[in-house]
Amino acid sequence: MRIQVINPNTSVAMTEKITAAAQAAARPGTQVHGCCPADGPVSIEGHFDEAIATLGVLEQVRGGMAAGAQAHIIACFGDPGLLAARELAAGPVIGIAEAGFHLASLVATRFAVITTLGRTRIIAEHLLQRYGFAGLCTDVSCLEVPVLDLEHCTPALVAQMVEEGRRLRDTRGAGAIVLGCGGMADLRQALTDALGIPVIEGVSAAVKLAESLLDLGLGTSKHGDLAYPLAKPFKGRFAEWGQEA
Amino acid sequence: MRIQVINPNTSVAMTEKITAAAQAAARPGTQVHGCCPADGPVSIEGHFDEAIATLGVLEQVRGGMAAGAQAHIIACFGDPGLLAARELAAGPVIGIAEAGFHLASLVATRFAVITTLGRTRIIAEHLLQRYGFAGLCTDVSCLEVPVLDLEHCTPALVAQMVEEGRRLRDTRGAGAIVLGCGGMADLRQALTDALGIPVIEGVSAAVKLAESLLDLGLGTSKHGDLAYPLAKPFKGRFAEWGQEA
Amino acid sequence: MRIQVINPNTSVAMTEKITAAAQAAARPGTQVHGCCPADGPVSIEGHFDEAIATLGVLEQVRGGMAAGAQAHIIACFGDPGLLAARELAAGPVIGIAEAGFHLASLVATRFAVITTLGRTRIIAEHLLQRYGFAGLCTDVSCLEVPVLDLEHCTPALVAQMVEEGRRLRDTRGAGAIVLGCGGMADLRQALTDALGIPVIEGVSAAVKLAESLLDLGLGTSKHGDLAYPLAKPFKGRFAEWGQEA
Amino acid sequence: MRIQVINPNTSVAMTEKITAAAQAAARPGTQVHGCCPADGPVSIEGHFDEAIATLGVLEQVRGGMAAGAQAHIIACFGDPGLLAARELAAGPVIGIAEAGFHLASLVATRFAVITTLGRTRIIAEHLLQRYGFAGLCTDVSCLEVPVLDLEHCTPALVAQMVEEGRRLRDTRGAGAIVLGCGGMADLRQALTDALGIPVIEGVSAAVKLAESLLDLGLGTSKHGDLAYPLAKPFKGRFAEWGQEA
Amino acid sequence: MRIQVINPNTSVAMTEKITAAAQAAARPGTQVHGCCPADGPVSIEGHFDEAIATLGVLEQVRGGMAAGAQAHIIACFGDPGLLAARELAAGPVIGIAEAGFHLASLVATRFAVITTLGRTRIIAEHLLQRYGFAGLCTDVSCLEVPVLDLEHCTPALVAQMVEEGRRLRDTRGAGAIVLGCGGMADLRQALTDALGIPVIEGVSAAVKLAESLLDLGLGTSKHGDLAYPLAKPFKGRFAEWGQEA
Amino acid sequence: MRIQVINPNTSVAMTEKITAAAQAAARPGTQVHGCCPADGPVSIEGHFDEAIATLGVLEQVRGGMAAGAQAHIIACFGDPGLLAARELAAGPVIGIAEAGFHLASLVATRFAVITTLGRTRIIAEHLLQRYGFAGLCTDVSCLEVPVLDLEHCTPALVAQMVEEGRRLRDTRGAGAIVLGCGGMADLRQALTDALGIPVIEGVSAAVKLAESLLDLGLGTSKHGDLAYPLAKPFKGRFAEWGQEA
Repeated sequence: MRIQVINPNTSVAMTEKITAAAQAAARPGTQVHGCCPADGPVSIEGHFDEAIATLGVLEQVRGGMAAGAQAHIIACFGDPGLLAARELAAGPVIGIAEAGFHLASLVATRFAVITTLGRTRIIAEHLLQRYGFAGLCTDVSCLEVPVLDLEHCTPALVAQMVEEGRRLRDTRGAGAIVLGCGGMADLRQALTDALGIPVIEGVSAAVKLAESLLDLGLGTSKHGDLAYPLAKPFKGRFAEWGQEA
Repeated sequence: MRIQVINPNTSVAMTEKITAAAQAAARPGTQVHGCCPADGPVSIEGHFDEAIATLGVLEQVRGGMAAGAQAHIIACFGDPGLLAARELAAGPVIGIAEAGFHLASLVATRFAVITTLGRTRIIAEHLLQRYGFAGLCTDVSCLEVPVLDLEHCTPALVAQMVEEGRRLRDTRGAGAIVLGCGGMADLRQALTDALGIPVIEGVSAAVKLAESLLDLGLGTSKHGDLAYPLAKPFKGRFAEWGQEA
Repeated sequence: MRIQVINPNTSVAMTEKITAAAQAAARPGTQVHGCCPADGPVSIEGHFDEAIATLGVLEQVRGGMAAGAQAHIIACFGDPGLLAARELAAGPVIGIAEAGFHLASLVATRFAVITTLGRTRIIAEHLLQRYGFAGLCTDVSCLEVPVLDLEHCTPALVAQMVEEGRRLRDTRGAGAIVLGCGGMADLRQALTDALGIPVIEGVSAAVKLAESLLDLGLGTSKHGDLAYPLAKPFKGRFAEWGQEA
Repeated sequence: MRIQVINPNTSVAMTEKITAAAQAAARPGTQVHGCCPADGPVSIEGHFDEAIATLGVLEQVRGGMAAGAQAHIIACFGDPGLLAARELAAGPVIGIAEAGFHLASLVATRFAVITTLGRTRIIAEHLLQRYGFAGLCTDVSCLEVPVLDLEHCTPALVAQMVEEGRRLRDTRGAGAIVLGCGGMADLRQALTDALGIPVIEGVSAAVKLAESLLDLGLGTSKHGDLAYPLAKPFKGRFAEWGQEA
Repeated sequence: MRIQVINPNTSVAMTEKITAAAQAAARPGTQVHGCCPADGPVSIEGHFDEAIATLGVLEQVRGGMAAGAQAHIIACFGDPGLLAARELAAGPVIGIAEAGFHLASLVATRFAVITTLGRTRIIAEHLLQRYGFAGLCTDVSCLEVPVLDLEHCTPALVAQMVEEGRRLRDTRGAGAIVLGCGGMADLRQALTDALGIPVIEGVSAAVKLAESLLDLGLGTSKHGDLAYPLAKPFKGRFAEWGQEA
Repeated sequence: MRIQVINPNTSVAMTEKITAAAQAAARPGTQVHGCCPADGPVSIEGHFDEAIATLGVLEQVRGGMAAGAQAHIIACFGDPGLLAARELAAGPVIGIAEAGFHLASLVATRFAVITTLGRTRIIAEHLLQRYGFAGLCTDVSCLEVPVLDLEHCTPALVAQMVEEGRRLRDTRGAGAIVLGCGGMADLRQALTDALGIPVIEGVSAAVKLAESLLDLGLGTSKHGDLAYPLAKPFKGRFAEWGQEA
């Protein structure tokens, strides 16, 4: 079983962290191939960064398919390019935000998200609405920490997250916490120990969901809006994406 | 890894079918223990049947915990007793309706449910609303077939389901189909072949989700409404459930 | 007119309190028969307690029907077993949570609920969502008081409720208060006097709704999901519920 | 107990029909005072008619209060002027649309509305949304019959309603029918007999709800948006509504 | 291009302020005709005031149409009589609340409303729900200032609004502010300068939307519920509104 | 006033059609600059096409800003890149889908969309949900016509649209029609004439909304999620987008 894990930003340190988290979650026999685009922003902290990073995600998906990947994980909490990638791929494509939400809703009736910058809250809110989980999420709590600070998490940051997790657990009714950034992939255990409630980290969650779908022979529906892109000309730099109709 | 699969009705034939589907979906190393209550309705086709069956589900969960089960699956499409079972258990508890909805939403933007009797539609609708998937489901389509007819599915029934699946796919925008009864566990392949879109069957879906949670060390949140039941006296026949406060 | 009032828990003191509240609300000519199951939890403070209590509720409904009751009230704020009881009964079945919500929405544009333990909040939230009142309820406020403390309310508890009611009225926009426990049935007048806004107590509200439906000759719809349970075998302890198909 | 029943349109025939329906529903000891404005449209079939009729409703409420009415019913299916009337009144004010919706939701999980002209559908939809019942209503079905044709219902009209009721019951999942016009107040029995499911007629439903609230000593909340109108000058024709601040 | 701006209350000072704001927003060539009813409340601070004012609004619309107005603006934040006025008019009719919401949603993903009295909050909430903007509005914040205090705004009031605007911007996630009263029409610039985010004032917003629709030749749909009122008799004082059918 | 109109696909014929529609809608004094990306798909018919086209949209926005454009219109019905473009721009950015929805909701209580391929329906549905208009839209009706067929519309296509428009108007309750493709910009008059209800075309609608915002001095909120993108390195091909932090 070959699963491609795409870090949509271009930070090598974060790609390594995400890949390690994915490999730790994968079961024996699952090959995890971590990667990130060569081109694009070093971190994704808004709609614009997402839009640029999406091109790299799609190129990685195409490359992953050519290399035999059977499933693809988009390891940024905004799930950038998720539906476009699903059009490209025959196998499952899983975003880490959706993965986190799905598993959290299986172990708690209400969950909260802890994420990075306040300016990205709207991205999580839009996803919660589109996926259907808005009514299950008590809070999208923002630490106001830049994403790249998560390349190497400090004890102070962990302490801040624990404090916020306690507040969400004790005063907001959150029965589980979803970590809202691919860069938090190595913090799950520390937070679990400190909070005593399920802490879901999206990269590992996505690996398990991808394995689950592959085990069942389930891929992306190729009927309707997720069918392969219609063959058509693409001009200029993107001509390589074009096909004869 | 030990997973208990509880058929909430008391049909032995259906329990065997469900257990077989679970075992077929489990990966090597996962032990599946199928069971059903000794007492209760032979099929579940309404709120009342569900209410009675729930007691059996809870007794089975308790028995399963004593026997070392690490996760529990409730294999009836109404997910009867799900939240009560989660209070009892430390490990994950997964309903097959929720399992089907979750996986369907990962492979299609819109899905439809094919289920048995029209009188059970409201049960599926209530679950879709509570779990958040109402906006993703195009139809809960009812075959008007009694549950026990699914103990031994006829070609005519399969043909009816294929026809309905085609209608949902071609005119209703469903990119995937969720099979809405534990008794349909052996029909997934035939429908997949006929329809050419993902067909999700809840028993196998639940097994994979249970494995996923166990792999990640995630159990039911023991904080808040899913914490263990408060210790208190139970009178009469149910005294065994009581504990000193 | 004969109305059965079922306290789903097995506390005799609370059953007496609830029966008294129902009788005080009934008009001349309405006979109120209070009862509680012989078997089950002494209080209902979670999904599990509800699931066990539901069996007792259904047995009481059956017994009430045999004894000539024309309507049935389920006097626990989670409305346990409501839809199952409606399948059994030809007459109206009213839960005290729904009764409270309905009447509150007729006298105020926004209402709040004051209930017992935080772990039961989710039950009220699920009901508000299913009945359609979620958008009208500003808060489900939890006193963190065990249900059985309400068998004999102390002045301190009343004072706590008054304080919370004032907060909800003055800072949360609640124009009415719904008391969220059958055990609060005797507190309505004291809270009304202190708060100066409508305070709705579910037992008395349910009695009036039951009388209303009976006056109009309206019973539970016997078409669709609330039709009588399908005749089928029940095994073991529950064989008595079975019927020939 | 004195209940004022206000027909918002100026049709005397319809006022008589509505008053008769209210009196038939009232219990012994309840005095029903039927009335309609002297000024305004003879039927209400749109937003404009509603807006004009609202002034008459408010004048009738004021007159009713002066004459000792303890509760007020607005007997037009759009509930025109409901919240304004609640500001004026200390006692309960009930609209027949809301009354129908409330009682229908107590006897069925899904209901449908049969009303007059298609152009009034939006009014019912807006009310369903505001009251919270939108998710419980399968259809607002319009007969395309002018309101005044209901002054004297023909057998053909009844037959049309029966046919539509059967369709809603058998193919749309409606477990109960709400009659969507005050002018249908005398058709409830015929439709009940023909359809075999609960048929709720708003005038009688509102009478029972008003009696219920009065029995419990519940009036309109005088806190917040339903507090008495602020004292202020009104100019010109409406000066009589003004008060010194 | 002739646009009628109707202040629904009868305050001459506020009418002048609103007219000035409209004229300032209109482009060269647009004629703005400000007016208010001769009869009715001097300010609108609740459902009752709205109901009375609506009659004056409709009379003004009729008069405006006779005088050649091509579009009509209802310059009170509750949009009183909006749908009724749309029935009367062939041209566009715009409420200032809806105008504010629409433009705010084009320049920010989330906006907040600052309005006058807490008792009017429900009016804004009902409009947000009906128009679809409820999910985009973080807060309807009430200053507890009577509407007529806005005839001549004091520096203290402006300071209060600035402080509240900062709180909404910095702690509630509002990217834009909608001013929730026609009497705030002259405060937009001061608040914009102080807050540094878009501040939308409904009168000027409505003028631009009316101009936009007129430029495109778009008027109110005369099909369905907004078709001209059905011709019918009106009795008494309102006979002038009647027509032969 | 300088408004940039960006056709996100690379069809020159469609760009010309869109530009012409924008110029026809612009008032004297508004300069419209039509453009399309040099690189990318010739038509946009799915999530993938959108994702690639978004890069071109953002480059065009940047170029437009450098050239003095004060507002930007994204003339593809999926509003691709809308929020990312709003981050980049100080002035207003308007999508033609949102523009169509906004104006339609001002002239009718319910509207329908007529668009191209069924596989794009989900895109419209996601936008309706995110913008808040889902409850106002009766149907997203798909002609199953490829976008490029709209470069040169045939009488047969117009006839098909008229027929569908009549169905939506007469049987679905749509009071207005929104044309769901930039390529339909020249069909508005023909459809208006045939249907007799408002037909809204997004390009012209967006021009008017952009002019409206500019007239009022309103630009995109630069606070929160729409603030300028954070300065950070971009690698490789996208290095030009990077800035020193």
